[in-house]
Amino acid sequence: MKSREVHLNAYLKGDPRPENYSIVETDVPAPGKGEVTVRNHYISVDPYMRGRMSGIRTYVGPFEIGKVMEGGAVGEVVESQYDGLKPGDFVNSMFGWREAYTAPGDGLQKIDVSQLPPQAYLGIAGLTGMTAYVGIKRIIGLKEGETMWMSAGAGAVGSAGIQFAKAMGANVIATAGGREKCDFVKSIGADAVVDYKAESDLTAAIQAAAPKGIDAYFENVGGTHFTAALNTLKQYGRIAACGMIQRYNDAQPAAITDNLTFIVGKSLRIQGFIVTDHFDMMGDFIKELSGWMAAGKITPAETVIEGIENAPDAFMGLFSGRNTGKMLVKI
Amino acid sequence: MKSREVHLNAYLKGDPRPENYSIVETDVPAPGKGEVTVRNHYISVDPYMRGRMSGIRTYVGPFEIGKVMEGGAVGEVVESQYDGLKPGDFVNSMFGWREAYTAPGDGLQKIDVSQLPPQAYLGIAGLTGMTAYVGIKRIIGLKEGETMWMSAGAGAVGSAGIQFAKAMGANVIATAGGREKCDFVKSIGADAVVDYKAESDLTAAIQAAAPKGIDAYFENVGGTHFTAALNTLKQYGRIAACGMIQRYNDAQPAAITDNLTFIVGKSLRIQGFIVTDHFDMMGDFIKELSGWMAAGKITPAETVIEGIENAPDAFMGLFSGRNTGKMLVKI
Repeated sequence: MKSREVHLNAYLKGDPRPENYSIVETDVPAPGKGEVTVRNHYISVDPYMRGRMSGIRTYVGPFEIGKVMEGGAVGEVVESQYDGLKPGDFVNSMFGWREAYTAPGDGLQKIDVSQLPPQAYLGIAGLTGMTAYVGIKRIIGLKEGETMWMSAGAGAVGSAGIQFAKAMGANVIATAGGREKCDFVKSIGADAVVDYKAESDLTAAIQAAAPKGIDAYFENVGGTHFTAALNTLKQYGRIAACGMIQRYNDAQPAAITDNLTFIVGKSLRIQGFIVTDHFDMMGDFIKELSGWMAAGKITPAETVIEGIENAPDAFMGLFSGRNTGKMLVKI
Repeated sequence: MKSREVHLNAYLKGDPRPENYSIVETDVPAPGKGEVTVRNHYISVDPYMRGRMSGIRTYVGPFEIGKVMEGGAVGEVVESQYDGLKPGDFVNSMFGWREAYTAPGDGLQKIDVSQLPPQAYLGIAGLTGMTAYVGIKRIIGLKEGETMWMSAGAGAVGSAGIQFAKAMGANVIATAGGREKCDFVKSIGADAVVDYKAESDLTAAIQAAAPKGIDAYFENVGGTHFTAALNTLKQYGRIAACGMIQRYNDAQPAAITDNLTFIVGKSLRIQGFIVTDHFDMMGDFIKELSGWMAAGKITPAETVIEGIENAPDAFMGLFSGRNTGKMLVKI
């Protein structure tokens, strides 16, 4: 069996471009003892991958040049020499941007596709949803009746987090870029939406949407959003810093206006986090999410691009905001 | 009895200047029933007071224009109509920048001057020391063997914090401005000292002093110090944000280099705090401090300016770094 896969050609500075990636065709070996061959149905492209393309070690190491890029993928077992999986079963892996692969069966997570479509395990019921849940529940510690600002509200984590925060009884204001995305954010339950592309003064716009201030800010963007959050947070406000996508492609650090003294003046707490440090919450997450889904409180949202050859394009689209909800590549 | 006191003439923008303050002579009434008259021996001038001179409400309200400025002071009871205090007793009050006052006795804290000099209650054994303790013990949660960077190491909170962190078994690097202050910081136990005025690249200097990185940063300065801290903190690093004195006198926010993405990439926790929210730790603090002092681990450090008429000058000196240790005005 043949499989096409995506390789990184060199570490990046600045915006990712098509020439940074190669599509390479490889042979998929037949499974040996204990192995299975899987044909992927969906792969996940995520903003955090930009960090791994820089060659710098942060919370995960860099991608290897000239090898397939790792990342979440769901697929169907097509051949098995492993007792725990049979053809037709669906599995979740981190084997990344490729059409098919052969791997030991005991390293794969079997998923139940009777209640949810397979790609939900890359989105609302996967690391994306879990990231929103950890940020809101543990890092912020959001309480019923509080007001939270979700940035990048039309994105994968943002659209999940808006719905989770509403399900927890909070008041949610969200930012998104452009009319279409703002309409989407409204449709999934945000109490107020600010189109940051239409506002020259983001602080004033957030203050208008939340006249009493915000208790918490879920950070996916950075830059001017972060500055506006410090301006509008109440005393003892909390920030869950999940990502700062506005900065990931900057070859040089930018200068921003320094209002950091609000950290002292308002006794703010700002905490960066990575979902993989909080897997102890997985059981709680699945249980609470199942309840919300059964009650009809959650609408999974996704943008689907077709074909492995378009995976780099889908990834680059994350930075120009081409997705509403989770960005997926369908194989 | 007459008392001279210091009034604020108008709310400030930018650097405090002598013309912002007036020295006013008033009559101190004889004590009524339940009251005492106190002659102050020392008053405290502190960086946080700059915020109260701006007319903006942060964690404490602004000073009142044309009234005596509030603040910590220790003095001796000279006349008493209150059963709990007699002439010769020493008390701690927040009645501020004046030579003497009459007030209800039950609002004053009697202090024990048999073991410590009265002014220690404005410094190492008072809110200053407590601030350092809360920041290190609760906000950072410093552990034995970890490396902490104390900024403004020659200052009141800094010099207390260096000694507390050493007593807790940590490795401490400190920054201070100029040879004399750096020598002082070394003399109270810092393992390494960086003269930030002599370094053009503070990040490189901190990296040289702590080649494996720092686990924690105690923030008193802001600006370039904060930037260098984000650069040098290890994964899961913590910042206790106590003050950002470099910024307090800025009439306009400054632009700084944005390396805030490290908050995400290194899962950092940054927390602003004000000591008055943590008075539940007072008992632990006094107990632990007494043990350290009995073991000879602590050297209280202070800079003393004489005369109430020089209180504004002493206050302004905080921002040009004229103090080592706690800045006090002796009456």
